[in-house]
Formats: sequence, structure tokens, C-alpha cells
Amino acid sequence: MLPVSENSMTIKRTIFYVSDGTGLTAEALGHSLLTQFEDVEFTQVRIPFLDDKAKALDAVERINATGEADGLRPIVFTTLVDQELAAIVHEADAYSLSFFETFLAPLEAELGVKSSHTVGRSHGSADSSDYKNRIEAINYTLAHDDGITDRDLEQADVVLVAVSRCGKTPTSLYLAMQFGLKAANFPLIPEDFERGRLPGTLNRHRSKLFGLTIQPERLANIREERRAGSKYASLANCRYEVAEAEKMMRREGIRWLDSSTKSIEEIATTILQELKLR
Amino acid sequence: MLPVSENSMTIKRTIFYVSDGTGLTAEALGHSLLTQFEDVEFTQVRIPFLDDKAKALDAVERINATGEADGLRPIVFTTLVDQELAAIVHEADAYSLSFFETFLAPLEAELGVKSSHTVGRSHGSADSSDYKNRIEAINYTLAHDDGITDRDLEQADVVLVAVSRCGKTPTSLYLAMQFGLKAANFPLIPEDFERGRLPGTLNRHRSKLFGLTIQPERLANIREERRAGSKYASLANCRYEVAEAEKMMRREGIRWLDSSTKSIEEIATTILQELKLR
Repeated sequence: MLPVSENSMTIKRTIFYVSDGTGLTAEALGHSLLTQFEDVEFTQVRIPFLDDKAKALDAVERINATGEADGLRPIVFTTLVDQELAAIVHEADAYSLSFFETFLAPLEAELGVKSSHTVGRSHGSADSSDYKNRIEAINYTLAHDDGITDRDLEQADVVLVAVSRCGKTPTSLYLAMQFGLKAANFPLIPEDFERGRLPGTLNRHRSKLFGLTIQPERLANIREERRAGSKYASLANCRYEVAEAEKMMRREGIRWLDSSTKSIEEIATTILQELKLR
Repeated sequence: MLPVSENSMTIKRTIFYVSDGTGLTAEALGHSLLTQFEDVEFTQVRIPFLDDKAKALDAVERINATGEADGLRPIVFTTLVDQELAAIVHEADAYSLSFFETFLAPLEAELGVKSSHTVGRSHGSADSSDYKNRIEAINYTLAHDDGITDRDLEQADVVLVAVSRCGKTPTSLYLAMQFGLKAANFPLIPEDFERGRLPGTLNRHRSKLFGLTIQPERLANIREERRAGSKYASLANCRYEVAEAEKMMRREGIRWLDSSTKSIEEIATTILQELKLR
């Protein structure tokens, strides 16, 4: 018999992500596993920075109390480097899956070396060059958002172009934050279409250009939420802008993708792939 | 005998992350596993959007060619939902670890339901409410960066305060991007210390306030890179500002943390925990 909640046939389960770091990696993997179970309703709880025995015992208590309240044992995903703390957490009355224990032993065998069992190394320290690159990239990207300036474009790793509200800004910030890439972005506006050329000095940076486009109906919906009833948001205008932008990108030989149904992560990954960055 | 490179005792291995989605989850978990092996030099390659047989065969070829060039078989981490494609990739002459296959079967057993084997659901579609929340949060955060305005602060989930160059902007953007939180931030400047009170209308939003502080030496280094030789960057001034900011936060009862050695992810996770967000 399947475990079901009192008033419906929906299965409900509580998931804990327990980590001695942020728990973000455990949550990301757990989340992508859980999306494979559409008919189950999950409550997800992250317990980060579990780095001593008292916190481990607290976590066990919390997991057990949740199991009693739910009437079903929780599922616990752990990324705990400290084996003693892991052993305590795995004592909870829960179904536990350890991401580290599952994979570290086979990796040690394959690499022929022991793992260091050091806590909290996955996001890099504030002194690392990786970290400085990210901060510098974020600053650069903010200073080059939405066509603010076309100075220093030779430093850019990528320059996004698109009509207003296609996702240029979130994509640029994600590229900076996640990959440390300097991402500038420029809006394509009716004046550019009338002049029949790219804004500012963009033609000098053609190899870094990447375009976003969008279904006109979707663009009209997004713009309508911002400026209801405006010409800017009208379907006719959105159709015009999208058609002109695509014409311009085709003529200038700019690679582009349709952002309509894509997540920020998917857009960013496609850009890296197409521009052969990293 | 350990596999070593030609001119040194450093072990070098190539890692592939192969996914039918972005591969970001595979890379995140793989990366946190690899940080446990300090003495190995890893080259990491992500192969995203592997969604047909031709791409799977291409990947196998690329993995095998790399293995031949390296003189050592690559390590392949996969998150492939499609079992047929997974089978092809796992034919490569490599050491393969499948994140999905390893955990989906035990999860199916525990949940009592079959997984749907649907590709690309982990980052949410562009139509989901999650996605809209993220975009809205990013827009809000950009409009409330660095004390631009104290309007609409009742909509903020969190308001960061700190002296200039403590990491307010990257942290705010990360909170918005990763968690869909509306994060405003305000600089604490010498005028605030002289007046002896929080800037603008912040005192009305005390429950949302969170402070960042930093070691004065580190702050002086960071500021020196921006404005070399300035009073702003001098150690004496950094000491003064940090001491005054901490005094103000203590007096106003604002929780805070020292960002000196923390990653953006760690700072953000601590803020969520302290303010009991999500």
C-alpha cells in the first residue's frame, strides 16, 4: 500500500538536506532527483553548517519529530564530510542517502589516493582567485547592464543583445555570478532598426555578440505586466520589434536563441556552448 | 603505482559532466567531491543538452580521445534521465558514475512510485511561478541596490546594511537569483555615524535588517584596488568605519556576520538561517 495523506491520494514526504557546508549542492541534486516524482508532494528542509555533535543531535531530533508528525519517515540527503557527524545523523529514523559516502570510496579507488575529508571547500574561500573573478565580473556586468556604456567592451567575455524584456539582465548576472564571466548587454530599440545598424560600437565586438529572442505573444504578456495598455506592450509592436531584431541579427551574423521557454541556467549554458567560453 | 604526469608527481585527470539538461547539478556535486582530492589536478569538461543518439556517440568519441591523449581513462559523472542514452555514454572507456541511476532506484523503492524519467525539469520552465518570482526579485534587488531608494521597502524580504565593499551587492543578487528573495541593500557611510542613526527609513524595517562586517585589513586591501592611495582605502579610515558600523549595529540590535573569509553562498545561507527565511 502506498503511503497517502489523510484527505487525498497525494503522497506527501518531507526531505531534509543536511550538510556541514551550505547544503546547496545536496539540495540541487536532491531537487533534480525529486522532480522525477511528479505525484509526490515534497516539503524540503535544508540544515546547513552542521559542524559539531550538538548540531548533529539537534538535527536527529528534528528529523524524528517531523517523521512522527508526518506519520512517515523523512528522507535525508547528506553531504557530510565528517564521518562521525554523518554516523550520528544517519541514526535518525529516516531513509538516508549520503552523496559523499556513496561516491568518495569509488573515487578514492579510481584515483588511487585518499580523500582529505575537509569541510566546506566547494564554494571557494573569499581569498581565492575564483572568488575575486566572480566579484569583478559582477561589478563589470552591473556597470554594463542595459547599454549603460559601450566603454571597456574589449574586456567583456560576452555581449548580449535583444529587445527589451527578453531576459538579458538576469542572464548576464547569472553568467557573472556562476561562471565569473564579464557579460555586457544592450537593448535593441526601434531607433536601431530605423538606422539599420547595431547600437554604439557593437560592430567592433562581433565575435562576442549573442542575441536573445522571444515569442511576440509571450513578450506582450511580460510587457503588459509592466506597462498595461501601452503601445510598448501591444502585440503589434512586440511582433514588429521581434521581427526587426531577428532580421538585424540574421544580417549581422549574430548567433541567437529563443528564450521563451528556457530557464536562466539553460540560456546561460547554451551561450557558453555556442561562444565556446570556458 | 599511482598514475602521474610526465614531469611531476601531480596526478592529472580529466572529468566529464554529461547531462541531458544543463549539467550544472552534476558539475556542482562533482566539484564538491573533487575538492576532497587536493593532490590531483583536474581538468573539468561539461557536456550539456545531450538529448539524442548522435550526441551520445559524439560524447563517447570525445571521452575516448581524451583518455588516449591523457594516457589515463577519464572520469565521467552523468545525470542522464534517458536510460538508452545513458547506456551509450557508459560504454565509453572511462570510469563512470551515474548520479541518477545510483539514487533513483532506491528513491523509487522508498516512495513506492516509479520516477517519470522526464528530461530537464530541474531549473523550472520559464512559465513557472518560481521563475517569475526570481525575475521579479532580481529586478527589485537591482532597483534597491546600494541605497538607491528606500521606497517599497515593505516588499523587501531582507535589507542588508554594511560599509562600502563588504559584499552587499553580490550577496543581494545571489539571494534574488538563487532563492527569489527581494533583497535591498544600504551602505553605512560616515554621515550615518555622525548622525548616530540608520540611513533613511530603515529603522521602520528592523526585523528585515541584516549587517555585514569585515576585517579592516581586508577592507583596506579591497578598497586599495579600487582607489589606490585614497583616504577611503586607508587602514585608519577602514578601522574607523568598521568600528562605527559594528557599534551602530550593536546599538540597533541588528544581527550581523563577518564576511571576510566567507563565500557568497555561505553568507547567503547564513542570512536565510538567521532571518528564518524560507
